[in-house]
Amino acid sequence: MSNWRDNIRLVEPYVPGEQPDFPDMVKLNTNENPYPPSPKVFKAIKDFDADTLKLYPDPSLHLLVDAIAKNYGIEDNQVFTGIGSDDVLAIAFMTFFNSKKPILFPDITYSFYSVWAKLFKIPYKSPELDKDFMIKAKDYYSDNGGIVIANPNAPTGISQSEDFLIDIIEHNRDVIVIIDEAYVDFCGKSALHLTKRYDNVLVVQTCSKSRSLAGMRIGYAMGNPELIKAMDDVRLSFNSYPMTRLSIAVGKAAMEDADYYKETTKKIIETREWTKKELKRLGFTFGDSETNFIFAVHSSFKAEYIFRKLKEKHIFVRHFNSPRIDNYLRISIGTQEQMQYFITELEKILMK
Amino acid sequence: MSNWRDNIRLVEPYVPGEQPDFPDMVKLNTNENPYPPSPKVFKAIKDFDADTLKLYPDPSLHLLVDAIAKNYGIEDNQVFTGIGSDDVLAIAFMTFFNSKKPILFPDITYSFYSVWAKLFKIPYKSPELDKDFMIKAKDYYSDNGGIVIANPNAPTGISQSEDFLIDIIEHNRDVIVIIDEAYVDFCGKSALHLTKRYDNVLVVQTCSKSRSLAGMRIGYAMGNPELIKAMDDVRLSFNSYPMTRLSIAVGKAAMEDADYYKETTKKIIETREWTKKELKRLGFTFGDSETNFIFAVHSSFKAEYIFRKLKEKHIFVRHFNSPRIDNYLRISIGTQEQMQYFITELEKILMK
Repeated sequence: MSNWRDNIRLVEPYVPGEQPDFPDMVKLNTNENPYPPSPKVFKAIKDFDADTLKLYPDPSLHLLVDAIAKNYGIEDNQVFTGIGSDDVLAIAFMTFFNSKKPILFPDITYSFYSVWAKLFKIPYKSPELDKDFMIKAKDYYSDNGGIVIANPNAPTGISQSEDFLIDIIEHNRDVIVIIDEAYVDFCGKSALHLTKRYDNVLVVQTCSKSRSLAGMRIGYAMGNPELIKAMDDVRLSFNSYPMTRLSIAVGKAAMEDADYYKETTKKIIETREWTKKELKRLGFTFGDSETNFIFAVHSSFKAEYIFRKLKEKHIFVRHFNSPRIDNYLRISIGTQEQMQYFITELEKILMK
Repeated sequence: MSNWRDNIRLVEPYVPGEQPDFPDMVKLNTNENPYPPSPKVFKAIKDFDADTLKLYPDPSLHLLVDAIAKNYGIEDNQVFTGIGSDDVLAIAFMTFFNSKKPILFPDITYSFYSVWAKLFKIPYKSPELDKDFMIKAKDYYSDNGGIVIANPNAPTGISQSEDFLIDIIEHNRDVIVIIDEAYVDFCGKSALHLTKRYDNVLVVQTCSKSRSLAGMRIGYAMGNPELIKAMDDVRLSFNSYPMTRLSIAVGKAAMEDADYYKETTKKIIETREWTKKELKRLGFTFGDSETNFIFAVHSSFKAEYIFRKLKEKHIFVRHFNSPRIDNYLRISIGTQEQMQYFITELEKILMK
């Protein structure tokens, strides 16, 4: 028995959300967008000159950064891009959370915050959401090393108001406040304008949800140039060429077709509101989702039972076996047709 | 003045190799391949269904892993893939180097080894190469936390023999020995077969050099299934979807066209040998490169002077301002035509 095993890093085993692949499936389990990416993305790939792949990508990611900046009416030096918002958030954690005081984020929120905190040995505390899954502001007034708020929050789907965010920021001017807006396009209440007023606020968004590009892994952070430069410096210190040439081309094309994505986002919001009514009719309760998913609990049926029965019909939703939320289902919003089929099959399950 | 600045991570500023972009340039500074990727790569991109980008990639990267395994005649569970060999090596460092003893790698080698060691707080020592840039085996007999050997080494271009590697491995059965084979296809002396004999050896390769895919960021590690699983576990613990759907499709296509890459590699080797003769004629000396670059010093002209003069002609080579190697130029091998032009212009500079 060799001793090299003694030095292998021990990690908590992680099981990613199922990626089933049945031709007839309805996949409502990973908050993907049911609509295709912009026609400009299709064109960017068709027109891509594969010969250029022999060269390394531009380390400054200039073309992509520039397209994002233009889309939001900000400057290039206010934009950092990465391999999905996961990569962007991980680098933000590394860059900004080097205090001995704990960083703060809610107990029920995106599960990777605690993963990165552990990975980078950042102390953290997770104050409990209230019974309606809202953040209690006073939990974030105490001395801390930084704050992360997903807004709208996941997996609850619920937003906090702008006044609430300002209150949190005003109480925490000495640390970085990250606002993770992965789902913000489904409510339209971005805190981006607050980055002008507050130099300690970083807003993180992604092309994976409203821009139908989960398969392309493109995320970005926006904030004051000093924050962006700090993140660039940290990344370049250990990784010269993070994004592929195709990611740059595809991300740029997506950013240049805001009109297309406004249309698909509008359709998803309409379907979400329709789905809410139907779920209420079937006996579900849930917070008022402003995302592309609904986090719902049934008055009499167990979540695990419904989850299993839906799966038998190749309808996939998400069920978390975690404290406080183990009786909830997270249902991504598909097309109107998919959701009608989902509701019909769900109704059959609940009738039995 | 806000205090959030106190918690920003301080990093050593890093300047990546120049990525100039002149229509007439001869770019011999970042060891890229002068030939286009395989026609199968062009086809994979043209045929790619952009609609699938709305879905997350397969977290197991199955199609790419399987194509790599087939190409090398090994099993899927012996292959780990990542975003360039930089990503693969960084994850290997995190996974295997958790001892309190220092890991060992030469003083002159790939510059990112020490960067990752610092990043992950891994103690390390860098024994000096001898005056001919060869590794002194006995430096690697001492108690240590792991070993990393680039073979062929960069930026020297020189290989150690298989007997040498076996000696190092035999002396270090209790730690992981990483053999970084980024340039191995230009000498054909892979240590891959040693991973069968030694369960503590990990071989790392890349699609960036011999496979003309620097712009696609695809690297891989091969070794016994226990090592691969440990790396998979570490990665999945903090990143569910590391590679884009296009990376998977492009990498698979490249792996399925070994014949094409044998041809382009052969051409590069022929041009390298021609370039060696010409450089000798012009008064350069260098170790016997087995890579797609030559690391050369001139008998009378300073490297920095030649570097600057070439740059004026839009010919880009690499000059490192580091101890012991600051009078060397690292010259990537381009096409035969590019190298003829390079030699002609170089001769003019040296004649003046």
